[in-house]
Amino acid sequence: MTLSQILDLIGVGVFAVSGALAAGRKSLDLMGVVVIAIAASIGGGTLRDLLLNRHPVFWIASPSYLIVIVVCALLTVAWTRWFRPPNQSLQYADALGLAFFTISGAQIAETLNFAPIIVIVMGTITGVVGGVLRDILCAEIPMILRRGNIYATAAIAGAAFYLAMNVVGLPRPLPSLLGMSMIAGLRLAAIRWNLQLPVFSLDRDNPPR
Amino acid sequence: MTLSQILDLIGVGVFAVSGALAAGRKSLDLMGVVVIAIAASIGGGTLRDLLLNRHPVFWIASPSYLIVIVVCALLTVAWTRWFRPPNQSLQYADALGLAFFTISGAQIAETLNFAPIIVIVMGTITGVVGGVLRDILCAEIPMILRRGNIYATAAIAGAAFYLAMNVVGLPRPLPSLLGMSMIAGLRLAAIRWNLQLPVFSLDRDNPPR
Amino acid sequence: MTLSQILDLIGVGVFAVSGALAAGRKSLDLMGVVVIAIAASIGGGTLRDLLLNRHPVFWIASPSYLIVIVVCALLTVAWTRWFRPPNQSLQYADALGLAFFTISGAQIAETLNFAPIIVIVMGTITGVVGGVLRDILCAEIPMILRRGNIYATAAIAGAAFYLAMNVVGLPRPLPSLLGMSMIAGLRLAAIRWNLQLPVFSLDRDNPPR
Repeated sequence: MTLSQILDLIGVGVFAVSGALAAGRKSLDLMGVVVIAIAASIGGGTLRDLLLNRHPVFWIASPSYLIVIVVCALLTVAWTRWFRPPNQSLQYADALGLAFFTISGAQIAETLNFAPIIVIVMGTITGVVGGVLRDILCAEIPMILRRGNIYATAAIAGAAFYLAMNVVGLPRPLPSLLGMSMIAGLRLAAIRWNLQLPVFSLDRDNPPR
Repeated sequence: MTLSQILDLIGVGVFAVSGALAAGRKSLDLMGVVVIAIAASIGGGTLRDLLLNRHPVFWIASPSYLIVIVVCALLTVAWTRWFRPPNQSLQYADALGLAFFTISGAQIAETLNFAPIIVIVMGTITGVVGGVLRDILCAEIPMILRRGNIYATAAIAGAAFYLAMNVVGLPRPLPSLLGMSMIAGLRLAAIRWNLQLPVFSLDRDNPPR
Repeated sequence: MTLSQILDLIGVGVFAVSGALAAGRKSLDLMGVVVIAIAASIGGGTLRDLLLNRHPVFWIASPSYLIVIVVCALLTVAWTRWFRPPNQSLQYADALGLAFFTISGAQIAETLNFAPIIVIVMGTITGVVGGVLRDILCAEIPMILRRGNIYATAAIAGAAFYLAMNVVGLPRPLPSLLGMSMIAGLRLAAIRWNLQLPVFSLDRDNPPR
């Protein structure tokens, strides 16, 4: 198993939890929970594989990913019967999935010798698309677009840092670990202290400053 | 013409009708009707072909699919001028499209010797994605997520049954016919008697039981 | 650089402006502006390349597209601080992007010797998908579906006209220029004089005529 496969596996698991929690907030039935969990978990990596023309797509090559997703989604349903999850558990699971998938995507693009900007964009796409799908299917504004949520910013910064640490020559898997810590750290700090980027507004009642 | 091509052709026709009916409910113009009909009809099979790396994609290989879609969409517009369709005709057309496309997708994945879980997932994706696209474009909650609508469940059960009948060794095309009957039957029964799966709720005012 | 690459480059730039303006209306932060600009700019061409199995996808092959997008998006943020854009600038940028991308998509499909209907559909998909993505991400009804907006109609008419002028034997790049002028012209005329196609309505309170 390669490092990017291990990252994909953990990413898939935590995104499955995030999908099940999002479905629970919308009071979907059990199949809806599984559908949202699958969409959240495989969305980013699938788009990455299609864009990079890597076939078979990761979950078609190793169907065990699907089993992991279904098990994680059903376990989430089960444990929330006894233990009410804190309000922000969805955001925490999402932050971890973002970290694992972004670095997995960046790493795959880097191995294929793409330009640095493509490595960063591919990492970001792999990291954010599953969550966007999850939120669109749940009819929520995607987290990536909610104001004052350092989200794509965290993915881009982490992927760039990962790349820089690789260029510097840090031994593997240190760059991956540092990149993931940076993404999860930035994201959690943004949730905790409500950090935000400047806003661009063309709204009539809120003219640009 | 192979069996899966015939299933695709019928599936495309009934999904075109479902798309036109959905567009009519939103009072779109004629081009909107055609756009929604095309998205509903080719969405599932297109994603199936991209995921399985089958090129050219089915409707690019045989452009007659597109003509069938446009004709079915315009005929739907024409006949609803004289005959007001019953309220549930959209759901009926959708149920038939789900049945045809799910089995077509499962069959193609099976012919390519994928693992059973991939055959089932690929059938389900082929069956449900067109309807999800149609509903998102119409700004409706996708049928697949509406509570108490045995939807993905019907597709999964039918694809699994199709697969089991094939393993058992039933002569073709019996497994396909049985699988499709099961999907359409389950779906129509769910609409008729309002069958539903247990709900998973993390909603504050509706705590998990 | 081929003609279709030049069209892609200009299309990418104007769609980036349209994406930034759409994000500004929703008061997103700077990263949200960049994300929406990228989705609007690369959505159509990416789907075209995936459907036609052209790898690497255009912006992966030439990462400079991404730099153009980011620069155009940030310049849009900058100049709207001093100069308030007219209300319809989003629609104007969108009309130009539609024109450039539709002809670029049609041209690529034509070069690959696809049937005329596929050339037209591929042009239309290339032209409209970026805008649809932009509007879905901004939680707006996609322009393509808003009633009384000659939109897909303009793309289809322009792609067909481009094709006819090629068959007639007009020297290049005249067919491309005429096709693009037709699309932008139809679209701007529709905005200016509020042209519309007949509406298909199954709405209870608004029976079909």
